[in-house]
Amino acid sequence: MNHADWIRQELATLSTSLGFRYTPPEEIEGRLRRLRAAMEQNGIEAFLAVQKMDSFYLSGTTQDALLFVPVEDEPLLMVKRELERARVESPLEAVIAIQSTRELPDLIRAHRGRLPETLGLELDILPAKDYFRYETLFEGTRLVDGSALIRDVRKIKSPFEIDLMRKAGEIGERVYNRARDFLREGMTEIEFGGLMEAAAKVFGHEGLIRVRSFNYEAYTWHVLSGPNGGIVSQSDSPMGGLGLSAAFPVGASLRPMKAHEPILVDFGICYQGYQADQTRMFSIGRMASKFIDAYHACQEIHDAVLAETRPGADCEKLFLDTLTLAEKLGYKDSYLGPPGLQCRFIGHGIGLELNEFPFLAQGQSYPLEAGMTFAVEPKIVFPGEGSVGLENTVVVTEDGYELLTPLAQDIFEI
Amino acid sequence: MNHADWIRQELATLSTSLGFRYTPPEEIEGRLRRLRAAMEQNGIEAFLAVQKMDSFYLSGTTQDALLFVPVEDEPLLMVKRELERARVESPLEAVIAIQSTRELPDLIRAHRGRLPETLGLELDILPAKDYFRYETLFEGTRLVDGSALIRDVRKIKSPFEIDLMRKAGEIGERVYNRARDFLREGMTEIEFGGLMEAAAKVFGHEGLIRVRSFNYEAYTWHVLSGPNGGIVSQSDSPMGGLGLSAAFPVGASLRPMKAHEPILVDFGICYQGYQADQTRMFSIGRMASKFIDAYHACQEIHDAVLAETRPGADCEKLFLDTLTLAEKLGYKDSYLGPPGLQCRFIGHGIGLELNEFPFLAQGQSYPLEAGMTFAVEPKIVFPGEGSVGLENTVVVTEDGYELLTPLAQDIFEI
Repeated sequence: MNHADWIRQELATLSTSLGFRYTPPEEIEGRLRRLRAAMEQNGIEAFLAVQKMDSFYLSGTTQDALLFVPVEDEPLLMVKRELERARVESPLEAVIAIQSTRELPDLIRAHRGRLPETLGLELDILPAKDYFRYETLFEGTRLVDGSALIRDVRKIKSPFEIDLMRKAGEIGERVYNRARDFLREGMTEIEFGGLMEAAAKVFGHEGLIRVRSFNYEAYTWHVLSGPNGGIVSQSDSPMGGLGLSAAFPVGASLRPMKAHEPILVDFGICYQGYQADQTRMFSIGRMASKFIDAYHACQEIHDAVLAETRPGADCEKLFLDTLTLAEKLGYKDSYLGPPGLQCRFIGHGIGLELNEFPFLAQGQSYPLEAGMTFAVEPKIVFPGEGSVGLENTVVVTEDGYELLTPLAQDIFEI
Repeated sequence: MNHADWIRQELATLSTSLGFRYTPPEEIEGRLRRLRAAMEQNGIEAFLAVQKMDSFYLSGTTQDALLFVPVEDEPLLMVKRELERARVESPLEAVIAIQSTRELPDLIRAHRGRLPETLGLELDILPAKDYFRYETLFEGTRLVDGSALIRDVRKIKSPFEIDLMRKAGEIGERVYNRARDFLREGMTEIEFGGLMEAAAKVFGHEGLIRVRSFNYEAYTWHVLSGPNGGIVSQSDSPMGGLGLSAAFPVGASLRPMKAHEPILVDFGICYQGYQADQTRMFSIGRMASKFIDAYHACQEIHDAVLAETRPGADCEKLFLDTLTLAEKLGYKDSYLGPPGLQCRFIGHGIGLELNEFPFLAQGQSYPLEAGMTFAVEPKIVFPGEGSVGLENTVVVTEDGYELLTPLAQDIFEI
């Protein structure tokens, strides 16, 4: 049997039996409808999605492809590799082969008769060299930045998406509960996290956490014990950890964990592309009361944010209010990082990527809306000693929020 | 103690005791010398490295930073986060803080009195939006593509780099030998790979494999059993596997592995940023002779490539010769992929990234040079049935090659 025939005959059955949840046609239709409305409002005649998650969101497949969405006609998915899989995975009608980006104008002309006057591109992420290429290919077309547009459409999640995130949260609960069995004194941070990761994959975790950035790197998890929890690294995060080398100076290290020290575990789960993020504290025996008190402060800040979480709440105000509360609780200088290195956000949108809208952060004054999903993560850092934190993922509902990460919130003391 | 003091006093000792191997000053000096020579030849007055591996290669740190290299003066490393770590990690003299990219022109003027007339950027990877920003910031400067330049400098490895890759290869050997203990009938692909990954991390594997691309994604490993080995996916690879979802349709799946089927394990190791890539076959009990024969053909092709590996050998010819040999051995239609989806390369440069120069591939007619490192990976694919393959990483020496992946090359039959 040749490959194409095998894919056509077997892939849908095999993959569904092994847990694949393909994006339903009506889901894609709804997303396209909202994108088109935004395009119309912004005078963009067509949108070209090449970034993997934008393209997955609008087509249901992550095969290597270019997705052309005209404001009035059907989208055209042009697949470099692998065409037959894309046809199984995507509910779109027009799924055709493309060998080289050079063919793009001709394929678009064949699809709808003409090139667009205005074409939206993902300029926040598209390499300059590719941009120059599109400039040559689309002579006479005005190229504009469409990244704000697609990010805006993606920020409101559908029930289908929320359900996948809820499932990711349930996987997280299983992983943390399983972690109790692994943890023991003298085990290194990296060994502990590695065992959690191996367990998570058996439960359906895809093992990667996506961030919309050309240069960002992180583990999908942190295990930071004792003083390592007080180390900041390259990312915009209250703590970064030591890592394994200068080439990857972030996350768990080869440090053996000791009894009575705080062990911060920040472990994101990715299920069918959708993420849920959570942080909990572990300790082997009781940790010092300084850390327990700080953890309770994190809980209080976490609860205060969620008490105000509903449509209409201002994202910047939600963040700024936590500064006041943290100061009142006595953690002005250690809240969200060491002095001088403190982060300016308490929550980040999450879905297919870890840095979606909304940001509960300084300078982000806009209202929460129903269907937005975000992670809220108060953390307190003591340089040279350790850090504590709590994180959960929620969806904004019509009158409040729903927690998507059901894991118990007590300290995991073993 | 504050964070900066703690980092200054503790980081070097702690990290070195936990296995960090910082890039020595003379190593950085040599790299800068070669880059400057290339800049001079190409009329580029200054180079701005922002891509993480370019910047790590030239500075020794991957903290969030911008690295400015003028052709005549000392480089200037401008660090967003985290400055004190960058100072410990990098042997460069001028390591200063930058809050926003806006400050770039002023900091450069303060460093060397003027902005460059020509500035090389990594246009193959730099987002268009960032490029436009540099255009505004560097008015009067000619911005040119410097990506070919830095990739060219990076293609020849130093003894320091080769030593780290050799260590990565040794970790690979330990991981595969450990894998014998895990594998059992009925275990899923993802569980087996997850256990190998957890073991690899304990041995020092950093858990990520870098590729110079804005959109490429893969596991650092494939475990592909039976028919799943015959499935192609989005990447330019002979086989892609089923994966866990349409969002990540590559690599291991939740399929339970059966006795007597071929299990292809392609597992890359990253140690201190440097990679070694290898592929071996596993089976539970003896696999069918069809697959054993094909594996022997892979060995013959692998050996034939290495028999010709020495400075001066043409990279395209090395690839094309394997097509002739594969046909002679009876695998014309299954070599490097199913019919119509066959890859056009037999080897890829490897180091900090998985797609460095040289490429032993169609259209890549240039000579091998001493100090180049590449992975050679003949693979044979039978759609609907499975695939086999062998992969090793080598460095080109003055008169041949040295194998960096010492793992035994027999089938791992348990």
